[in-house]
Amino acid sequence: MSHIELRCPKCGISRPADMSAEACRDCGSPLDVAYTVHAGNGQTMPSPVHGPTNDVSLGEGDTPCVHLTTLFARLPKLYAKLEFLNPTGSFKDRGTATMMSVALEQGVTELVEDSSGNAGASVSAYAARAGIKPHIFVPADAPLAKLRQIKAYGTEVHHIEGRREAVTEAAIAYAKEHDLVYASHMLSPYFAEGTKAFAYEVAQQFGGSMPGHVVFPVGNGSLLIGAFNGFKELKATGQIKEIPCLHCVQSRNVMPLVAAFNGKEWGPESASKTVAGGISIAAPSRQWQILKILRSTGGSAVAADESSILRMQRDLAEEEGIFAEPTSSTAFAGLEILINQGVVHEDDAVLVPVTGFGLKD
Amino acid sequence: MSHIELRCPKCGISRPADMSAEACRDCGSPLDVAYTVHAGNGQTMPSPVHGPTNDVSLGEGDTPCVHLTTLFARLPKLYAKLEFLNPTGSFKDRGTATMMSVALEQGVTELVEDSSGNAGASVSAYAARAGIKPHIFVPADAPLAKLRQIKAYGTEVHHIEGRREAVTEAAIAYAKEHDLVYASHMLSPYFAEGTKAFAYEVAQQFGGSMPGHVVFPVGNGSLLIGAFNGFKELKATGQIKEIPCLHCVQSRNVMPLVAAFNGKEWGPESASKTVAGGISIAAPSRQWQILKILRSTGGSAVAADESSILRMQRDLAEEEGIFAEPTSSTAFAGLEILINQGVVHEDDAVLVPVTGFGLKD
Repeated sequence: MSHIELRCPKCGISRPADMSAEACRDCGSPLDVAYTVHAGNGQTMPSPVHGPTNDVSLGEGDTPCVHLTTLFARLPKLYAKLEFLNPTGSFKDRGTATMMSVALEQGVTELVEDSSGNAGASVSAYAARAGIKPHIFVPADAPLAKLRQIKAYGTEVHHIEGRREAVTEAAIAYAKEHDLVYASHMLSPYFAEGTKAFAYEVAQQFGGSMPGHVVFPVGNGSLLIGAFNGFKELKATGQIKEIPCLHCVQSRNVMPLVAAFNGKEWGPESASKTVAGGISIAAPSRQWQILKILRSTGGSAVAADESSILRMQRDLAEEEGIFAEPTSSTAFAGLEILINQGVVHEDDAVLVPVTGFGLKD
Repeated sequence: MSHIELRCPKCGISRPADMSAEACRDCGSPLDVAYTVHAGNGQTMPSPVHGPTNDVSLGEGDTPCVHLTTLFARLPKLYAKLEFLNPTGSFKDRGTATMMSVALEQGVTELVEDSSGNAGASVSAYAARAGIKPHIFVPADAPLAKLRQIKAYGTEVHHIEGRREAVTEAAIAYAKEHDLVYASHMLSPYFAEGTKAFAYEVAQQFGGSMPGHVVFPVGNGSLLIGAFNGFKELKATGQIKEIPCLHCVQSRNVMPLVAAFNGKEWGPESASKTVAGGISIAAPSRQWQILKILRSTGGSAVAADESSILRMQRDLAEEEGIFAEPTSSTAFAGLEILINQGVVHEDDAVLVPVTGFGLKD
């Protein structure tokens, strides 16, 4: 018997764990991993993988946490967690490692994923490591450096013209047609579960003086969701006292979550091109879950304009020596707004994950 | 009084520690850091930096060590240490962090470095972090991705036409003319000293069952030299029993060390372009020191051809999910030669540092 099942975070209905990325049949929400037996000793993170035999790992995690002393002079307790120092250069490796370990355990030999870049590279690398054949569906206009990386792992790349959603549709259709697993970083419960490790490391690195705020760049929200689930476990087992306020930052050009959180009208037809390609998701499949997390932790959602995103990318490199992709610097542009709005105060401790390497974009 | 001095590894003469990258006035050899008082407790690594106040850090080090199960089927105990998961994407950050910390401590505000890529990016990032203005001299034909990274940190880049040596000469002339520190990753004793941390981590990660061989791609040899110095300290304090055999791999197109080690004729005029740009050094300033290390540890020096370097880059990505730059895959091409020569045996445990990210080249 498995120690896990897949549970809907919205209506609570659960079903046996499998590799389908199928959403809740009742409400359409993507599912989460839920543990049916008490997992771990309360100190270590529970994992959906049954044993170490199937661990597909490239040494992801344990990323450094750096004190930023110059970027925001007003904010003396600002920290960056360098998530781009994961094996393929982005935070996605945390989710991918768990998703691919479960896939290997379940005997998967070929799978399909769609990604504008980072997730595609991550799934390609871990698939190579696991000996699984990946098909990655990408937008025809994906950044060249990211495409080059995906192809380096020997992956079969499928270029799809049109909107981002068309890429997802093509991937799902291909998976159905060839009876392959759709290993989606957006929908897979295992992907979200893997990103939970972020929270455990933050608790370990900060000890008793946890940051009051964590500011995320959000597209599909897998890191924010994983972090929240991790913090929730850590609080339940008494390892942290409070869950930090989790904030969501998007680009003004693609801001479904910011609009929904603040009760404003916004539809996918309002989306326009953004330098923050990694969070250019006009209809996040886990929107309901993300909004609930923001509200329950006292977080907020703000949108940054293109020029401030690029300015922050430059300042982060020139003032702190951290070369992030624009998707990642979006969080710092959002933090500036949060400070100006008085949501984040000068004596608050703030953590920002730097999700992707500047070399990638 | 300082706890360090600079000592010539060849003739043993020492002089007070300063920021000049000046070689030994007697024999011309670059200098090493030497500790004049017993530093540390034998467990932790001694450092040339006097106190933590001047630590210039971006969270370098603690890179993962990954078991490679597919690349060489004949070699079941092969491990890769992912040195490209340092803050600027290469192992250089270890050396740079120490060099820049000493520079900050000594009040340096502006400095000069010459680099074909990785060291330039690394010095740029840490200079930004320390608030020091860097001038980086690069060959006119340096890879675009590397140049882009150097410039991202706001660095003033000086493009120099001609041979690699002309770049070094131009950097030294500029430093002299403007009375600036020449912070050379090739000559600075602090840079080599910083790379020592590699050995301390290896000892920690492998515990009682240390690898018998470590195979390095070698240009200037700073990682090999640092690793050796670290292993020597670890042996002296009883933390490891034996120093592993340290091997040097170069490209056939630029192989001064391989030729010298094996008693063959080779001059800089024999050098031709190689895909392994990071180790394209026709006249390594620490050649004497590197050869001595190879001999004293029972190591060897082999040269790989261009096609095997590129094949290894591809295989490493496609079979193990590790995207390395060709400079780094050179070490694996060399390992193949060492296995075929019978230098490395099937039951030997072997470690290869993967020095630079494939995204860079």
